[in-house]
Amino acid sequence: MERDTERAVLRYTKEGFAEVEDRVAIEQPLTIKINGKEFMTIVCTPEYMEDMAVGFLASEGIIPNHRDIRNLRLDEEAGVLHVETDKVYPFYEQLLNKRFVSSCCGMSRQGFVFAHDALRVKKMTETRIRLTPADCFRMMEAMEQEAETFHATGGVHNAALCDRHGLVLSRMDIGRHNALDKIYGHCLRNDIPVHDKVVVFSGRISSEILMKVAKIGCEIVLSKSAPTDLALTLAEELGITTVGFIRDGSFNLYTHHERIVSEEKIAYPSFQLEE
Amino acid sequence: MERDTERAVLRYTKEGFAEVEDRVAIEQPLTIKINGKEFMTIVCTPEYMEDMAVGFLASEGIIPNHRDIRNLRLDEEAGVLHVETDKVYPFYEQLLNKRFVSSCCGMSRQGFVFAHDALRVKKMTETRIRLTPADCFRMMEAMEQEAETFHATGGVHNAALCDRHGLVLSRMDIGRHNALDKIYGHCLRNDIPVHDKVVVFSGRISSEILMKVAKIGCEIVLSKSAPTDLALTLAEELGITTVGFIRDGSFNLYTHHERIVSEEKIAYPSFQLEE
Repeated sequence: MERDTERAVLRYTKEGFAEVEDRVAIEQPLTIKINGKEFMTIVCTPEYMEDMAVGFLASEGIIPNHRDIRNLRLDEEAGVLHVETDKVYPFYEQLLNKRFVSSCCGMSRQGFVFAHDALRVKKMTETRIRLTPADCFRMMEAMEQEAETFHATGGVHNAALCDRHGLVLSRMDIGRHNALDKIYGHCLRNDIPVHDKVVVFSGRISSEILMKVAKIGCEIVLSKSAPTDLALTLAEELGITTVGFIRDGSFNLYTHHERIVSEEKIAYPSFQLEE
Repeated sequence: MERDTERAVLRYTKEGFAEVEDRVAIEQPLTIKINGKEFMTIVCTPEYMEDMAVGFLASEGIIPNHRDIRNLRLDEEAGVLHVETDKVYPFYEQLLNKRFVSSCCGMSRQGFVFAHDALRVKKMTETRIRLTPADCFRMMEAMEQEAETFHATGGVHNAALCDRHGLVLSRMDIGRHNALDKIYGHCLRNDIPVHDKVVVFSGRISSEILMKVAKIGCEIVLSKSAPTDLALTLAEELGITTVGFIRDGSFNLYTHHERIVSEEKIAYPSFQLEE
């Protein structure tokens, strides 16, 4: 499916108005039905929607294990993703019996499952990954290059998963959480481990993004932008390293400093995964 | 209440790491209780929370008329806003009897009330306001200046309401909709008409932002960033003029061109309100 489309636009410059074709991002509602019952409606960029649904249902704990999903069927015309599963978390079983319209482009999903979060999130007690500042810049650059290559429209969120060799996976979406769910869903469906990788994000690290990183099970999150205070409090408690404002050769290291080390302190290769 | 706070941060530059104090945005859950019953939990920037609640409840049609709100009481310590009202829209009355945890930092509120939107949104059939390109630049500049003056932390959304004389009101929030709800709530509580003003927004015009503008009852939205395709489809249908990418002396005019006119076509003052 297309993720952006042409629109006739009047462009104003010093020379006045001129009609031009502009590419704009497509945003589309997708309704997830679990075992035939409407579960929620997500507004998202219409690509990798199966990954997004799997990543969402698994990271939020709605389906305890993604292997319990027997079948996924996307009805593009109707905008419905049919999920057949043997197990649903009991708390959500109840909700399935009600008509429940929501969306995952923002906090709703987070808020919706807020009460349930404590059950899902494990504290990162180990330090399995160490990065040098050079790694941080390199990973941010890799994410941004990928974003530049593929996204002509602007106004979307980009997320990437990186390992010691560079970029593993990059996704975009109009909804910031969707990009991360698409990444997580892809990893689950393709048996790619996530715990040894780093999340790189284009936007602000809010409390929900931090919680999503924790649910996915990554211990480092890198961002071009600012974290919020609540995100930092959660990051401290959950053992997640938060690096923000990575730009122009500098960055801010907010929480769990132990995973970011000066070049001289570690041997090459600089990206060290303790196995 | 404070909207940002100091955090000790390790700042990395070419000279290496140095500990500095950094200001980060505060993000805080606020639970709205309607007549003693929990309605929803919003994650927001903790300022103008009464305005936000009134703007949200009124624009989403949860409380048919803001004058039906008998009392508003903010319990800062508990993070609860108590709303006492005589009337609640019947559809929501039912929901009030269930425990419903959500958040308004993103699409949830939009999605939540999606089914109900058709009832709330009126088509803008008249052209009451005409702007010149110079007006668009001037309003964007006014919004940005205000944002620069007051927001040190980055990573927040800024919204403003402008009229022919310039900036009327400016609000920021970690949640993009919250900023608009804070503006609308302030106008309702202070009897400031909204229909003769223009919404200026720092971020992307998504479908929810467009719907919020429509619910508030403004006919022009100006943005520094890109609109989505769905937002433009809605804007066309609802009669809203959408101007995006206002920067460096140029912009894109997407929908309902009739409200943006060249300088030479209208008499001064350039900002014309047809009363």
